[in-house]
Amino acid sequence: MRIKLNVLTLALLLCACLHGFATHAELLVKKQRFDLAEFNTFAGKTIKQVAIGYESYGTLNADKSNVVLITHYFSANSHAAGKYALDDAQAGYWDAIIGPGKAIDTDKYFVISIDSLANLNAFDPNTITTGPASIDPDTGKPYGLNFPVVTIRDFVISQKLLLESLGISSLHAVVGASMGSLQALDWAAAYPSWVPRMISVIGSGQTDAWTTSLLERWAMPIRLDKNWQGGDYYAYIAPQEGLVESMMAITLDALTPTFINQVGQSPEVQHSPLQTQPLHDINASFAIVDWLRERATLRVKHMDANHLLYLVRANQLFIAGYHQNLAAGMQRVTAKTLFLPASSDLLLRPYLAEEAHATLKQQGKDTELIYLDGIYGHLVGVSNIAQQADTIRQFLAN
Amino acid sequence: MRIKLNVLTLALLLCACLHGFATHAELLVKKQRFDLAEFNTFAGKTIKQVAIGYESYGTLNADKSNVVLITHYFSANSHAAGKYALDDAQAGYWDAIIGPGKAIDTDKYFVISIDSLANLNAFDPNTITTGPASIDPDTGKPYGLNFPVVTIRDFVISQKLLLESLGISSLHAVVGASMGSLQALDWAAAYPSWVPRMISVIGSGQTDAWTTSLLERWAMPIRLDKNWQGGDYYAYIAPQEGLVESMMAITLDALTPTFINQVGQSPEVQHSPLQTQPLHDINASFAIVDWLRERATLRVKHMDANHLLYLVRANQLFIAGYHQNLAAGMQRVTAKTLFLPASSDLLLRPYLAEEAHATLKQQGKDTELIYLDGIYGHLVGVSNIAQQADTIRQFLAN
Repeated sequence: MRIKLNVLTLALLLCACLHGFATHAELLVKKQRFDLAEFNTFAGKTIKQVAIGYESYGTLNADKSNVVLITHYFSANSHAAGKYALDDAQAGYWDAIIGPGKAIDTDKYFVISIDSLANLNAFDPNTITTGPASIDPDTGKPYGLNFPVVTIRDFVISQKLLLESLGISSLHAVVGASMGSLQALDWAAAYPSWVPRMISVIGSGQTDAWTTSLLERWAMPIRLDKNWQGGDYYAYIAPQEGLVESMMAITLDALTPTFINQVGQSPEVQHSPLQTQPLHDINASFAIVDWLRERATLRVKHMDANHLLYLVRANQLFIAGYHQNLAAGMQRVTAKTLFLPASSDLLLRPYLAEEAHATLKQQGKDTELIYLDGIYGHLVGVSNIAQQADTIRQFLAN
Repeated sequence: MRIKLNVLTLALLLCACLHGFATHAELLVKKQRFDLAEFNTFAGKTIKQVAIGYESYGTLNADKSNVVLITHYFSANSHAAGKYALDDAQAGYWDAIIGPGKAIDTDKYFVISIDSLANLNAFDPNTITTGPASIDPDTGKPYGLNFPVVTIRDFVISQKLLLESLGISSLHAVVGASMGSLQALDWAAAYPSWVPRMISVIGSGQTDAWTTSLLERWAMPIRLDKNWQGGDYYAYIAPQEGLVESMMAITLDALTPTFINQVGQSPEVQHSPLQTQPLHDINASFAIVDWLRERATLRVKHMDANHLLYLVRANQLFIAGYHQNLAAGMQRVTAKTLFLPASSDLLLRPYLAEEAHATLKQQGKDTELIYLDGIYGHLVGVSNIAQQADTIRQFLAN
């Protein structure tokens, strides 16, 4: 499939990929806040005064049996669907499948999504999170690297505490893309009595040596930035250059040669290997690099560099079930599971979802795997999720 | 194909991948030097007092008609075969196919290989190159970023000047891997009367937007290193941390998930997503990252960070023939051409060689394409080249 895209379409598409389509914005949503006096991490540390944000779509039924939990991806927050105001430019990232009458039908389900700990969008007014940029109550200053390492399991536990505070004691399903898929699968392993259904989109069962190395390349530019200063920059200048380079790397890893070369052919970029400025000035960039940098620069406005390091680490430290191997971790899963890897994914490559699926299948469990198609690589799981809307709808109905 | 490798084999393999196998080291070779009073670049600048090194294997025949030029890859120099001394740990990188009785038979051919301008190994005693680390005769200080941008075409022209100084006026063939393949194809386009045969291994016809973006990620860590100082570091501390990170990125890009995950399973690395130190310390690294860093640290000892930036730029500025499009550039090619992309290559992906091959085919030219197999990705073209030894031998014989 070859799509001709003009530059405006491209820009919209990238925005849409990253922030969600705004086509069915019937839902008006509000960010809510959950406070915990303290939180004990998987690694055995205590964090005081933890606050996390959440959003919900639809109505909790009387017996609280219609809860669908949406776990978010690396650069997202809990804004999975709807708009905060009618004139918002964009709706939540999975608005194509969450809403009244949609695949995850808010006329039937109470859909809830929760900001992760150390959420990347630390300075976004619509994100409530606790992480290295938060004030340590013991010192009155930002934690910086004194914030303890947190894991995907910690995200799961914090979500469970929030749900319990709402009187919820089981889920109809948990559904997540990318980093959200790690949480979804770990939910099924950690709390099997809560989770009858789990959907992993562009996901993984554990982080292998390759993916760990690849994720490290996202942390590296921040650590190299002279303003990073070992994470102690909150009173000084933030390491924005490293953060921008990190987001450029993330963008590339989440896309594909086919897509980037289409951008290269757009009127805005017009890639040429003989572009004049780079030929004459070693400090000049190619147009495609400028294109990536401009978009990354816009995206990092509300992000925190240390939070990015902590999210990288949480993703590196992942094995669903948190046992010594994946099979042991999957042993307790009772959920029916659905894996939707993207065939063009270069970031969480399809073999990762295939391994998790095969492990469950070997244990005789009810599991299915269907490939998402499209040229956008990892982002297919966000931007093109609607192609499996019917599959998701039916999976949730049974 | 699944290969079980112990850690020693892995280490040897990686060394061999990067530096060549030492199995048939009959050849004893000597680095030689070629001086030019001045060199005019493709972009219209003049470089004074240019020196470049070269090596030759075999004997130049009376009518100087048996010359095979080998053009080297990004991190290599002209040491393509043989050893400088019998007790050298390793032979040149393509020793498996260059030597007496081998595919590129030094009993028949006079094989010559030439250090590139701005060669990465600027401080290697066995590399002779002129680049940003060289002394600018006008100032008596290293050029730094005052060195002009150089291109693959400049490498080709400098090679031609050297060959002409030896009384050579045509080649039997030009053969190169990776960056060497760019030079080989440009030779065929720039000087068709010189080039009856061209072999492009793990190669490309032009650098597209995707590959340009990917190459930029190699330059980025150096530019972020606080010691880089706009390239003016020669009197101070070199940006070694950035250079090491760059070499780690290059290593990963040149390999594959399959290989890195085999390393992860080796006794030396024993990758686990729950490795204790990274779980408790945000500044601790995973074993696989340490493994990459240790190898990169060894490799950069004789490398220069600015030279790496200039090589990245030379590779970005590539379109064989240096016309506005590849078809126009290929128009003058009269050589019989052979493309050997690696099917597992994630760096110069097979579609790049396929495009160059298809362009020549469309022009009715004699061109062939055969895939190299193996799990080592881009490195297959160096470490596993012997699998096409017979093809290369026959191609050169006809």
